[in-house]
Amino acid sequence: MSTGKLEDREQTSAALGPFGACPLPIFDHPQIVLGHGSGGKLSAELIEKVFVSRFRNPTLEKMDDQAVLEIAGSRLAFTTDSFVVTPIFFPGGDIGTLAINGTVNDLAVGGAKPLYLAAAFILEEGLAAADLARIADSMAFAAQNAGVQLVTGDTKVVNRGKGDKIFITTTGIGLIDRATQLSADRARPGDKILLSGTIGDHGITILSQRENLEFESALASDCAALHDLIRAMLDEAEAAGNLQGVRVMRDPTRGGVATVLNEIAVRSNAGMVLRESVLPVRDAVRGACEMLGLDPLYVANEGKLVAIVAPQIADRVLAAMQRHPLGADSCIIGEVVEQPRGMVLMKTSVGGTRVVDVLFGEQLPRIC
Amino acid sequence: MSTGKLEDREQTSAALGPFGACPLPIFDHPQIVLGHGSGGKLSAELIEKVFVSRFRNPTLEKMDDQAVLEIAGSRLAFTTDSFVVTPIFFPGGDIGTLAINGTVNDLAVGGAKPLYLAAAFILEEGLAAADLARIADSMAFAAQNAGVQLVTGDTKVVNRGKGDKIFITTTGIGLIDRATQLSADRARPGDKILLSGTIGDHGITILSQRENLEFESALASDCAALHDLIRAMLDEAEAAGNLQGVRVMRDPTRGGVATVLNEIAVRSNAGMVLRESVLPVRDAVRGACEMLGLDPLYVANEGKLVAIVAPQIADRVLAAMQRHPLGADSCIIGEVVEQPRGMVLMKTSVGGTRVVDVLFGEQLPRIC
Repeated sequence: MSTGKLEDREQTSAALGPFGACPLPIFDHPQIVLGHGSGGKLSAELIEKVFVSRFRNPTLEKMDDQAVLEIAGSRLAFTTDSFVVTPIFFPGGDIGTLAINGTVNDLAVGGAKPLYLAAAFILEEGLAAADLARIADSMAFAAQNAGVQLVTGDTKVVNRGKGDKIFITTTGIGLIDRATQLSADRARPGDKILLSGTIGDHGITILSQRENLEFESALASDCAALHDLIRAMLDEAEAAGNLQGVRVMRDPTRGGVATVLNEIAVRSNAGMVLRESVLPVRDAVRGACEMLGLDPLYVANEGKLVAIVAPQIADRVLAAMQRHPLGADSCIIGEVVEQPRGMVLMKTSVGGTRVVDVLFGEQLPRIC
Repeated sequence: MSTGKLEDREQTSAALGPFGACPLPIFDHPQIVLGHGSGGKLSAELIEKVFVSRFRNPTLEKMDDQAVLEIAGSRLAFTTDSFVVTPIFFPGGDIGTLAINGTVNDLAVGGAKPLYLAAAFILEEGLAAADLARIADSMAFAAQNAGVQLVTGDTKVVNRGKGDKIFITTTGIGLIDRATQLSADRARPGDKILLSGTIGDHGITILSQRENLEFESALASDCAALHDLIRAMLDEAEAAGNLQGVRVMRDPTRGGVATVLNEIAVRSNAGMVLRESVLPVRDAVRGACEMLGLDPLYVANEGKLVAIVAPQIADRVLAAMQRHPLGADSCIIGEVVEQPRGMVLMKTSVGGTRVVDVLFGEQLPRIC
């Protein structure tokens, strides 16, 4: 019987320590920088070299937005996210709305019915109690709307100057109760790429609040729970007798649509071609992006969905999306191709083709 | 179909908003203070008035260290904790060891076999990559020792000065695969109060590191995973034909043994009497507590267990604990009585009786 103390590790690691057998990859950065939380290349390197290399198991290595667990004969989805957005209140939502909807969405894009949430709060000494109450109100409302119960939690308080008002980590459990097979490695040449609406609304809203920018039209975050839109899509695919024709679903948060599609292209070892002319972007977001030198394809969304769908059912699934209030602006933005494998290309409006690469570091820190 | 947007709330809250029906309790503090994270009275008030009042559901209201969920015919335990300890490395462990073992223990004291963990990291810009790697090593070692898989995670980075090196939130799922009935409301007069070893080791170790105090004997945190000790106890109770004679198990972390016993006394509507003379406290811990004006009963532990056990099987369960390396110093520290309900009393070594009350605010901030 091991006591599991660190002393045991020190005594045994030379002989049979868990990390002795295969050398760990070299993480060649002396310090953590903001880009390590961007969702781009630096994030991926940190996660692979520091975490996945040590915690290796087949579930973790799938690197989907949720783990799929088989427990006592049931298929459960399990996902966690910390929310550190600043400012904590913004048009269209707040950190509490985001914390519930973000986790609900990570369950839903795995084909799960969201059931239970845990919430852990790290509060900074001096946080206004009225702000905390308002955030808790938002969470209760969002949870009720998404049909989930918040069943357990934790609260820690850190000294003034050692946190930033409030950080929330929400973890969710959902039940996968139909025979979906959703994973980022399932895109096939010929599949259509569906997007549920305009891109960049959340990121540009946060940025404009933070920088006190005023744009002509009012902007608001698109923060929303996607479980019901996804249910409608899976219902339609099931009615068409091709449930597994819905191959991949992802909510394009940090790093935006470009980052999510690149991940899917790499994981599926396929190419993707997007058409710039059909990408739905609000005028205000487009204007802000031009002014700030940002590409809306990389800007975070919090209530949008990218789906890779088999061509046989793409039009039916699209129509189901368009009938739903959260998918009224849905469209097909491109398709999966054979070549070039692992890359995303864009047919531009002026007739050219460009590569839509992964971001290296940080474009917009603390966007969620 | 609701879009679940905040606008809907604003439009409907006057008529049928989720919080209109019954008024919320008044949380009479303008700001969050360190004591709201203490585990004492201030914590309880925050949790009840701000969170539980808004998220009400029977699972949450049980207020055990883990939620027990019935999903597709299985009983699962589900628990979350944020770890914000400072310093992040200390004798006997580090924030990574704590993050795994703490969550494993919260599952195990609910009678669950710990299975899967999620880990969410909030890193401060500038954290040394070598420190992060060392913490990840500790987590991998602790997870392997506890037989759990880390299956999903998240990483956020906050600007320098907006965090404190690293915060980790771990959330666990365990399977309750025997007919245990463990809950803080099940203590009955006549039950024995068992403690698995010396108290205060973790809290005093952290404090002495933080304040650069040197004590005669080396102190180390007791940080350990208790799942195997608990398995041995439940095996023994089952062999005695009285599995449900193990009524309550808790790991006395923030707020120590005193806080945990007070919670159980209130929830079970029973009294408790402890014997000071049998309380196991290391000399170095006792000395430090005397010097610092602390009572070891309120100091945090990270590898200890309090169990309330029916008198018929208390000696057998105690013997099983003493045979386990993590329970060698186990003893019976008192018993549950009828009166005074909801209170914990102590028979002191000099023959008197004193009340062991709940702490109001913060004794030792950021101990875990």
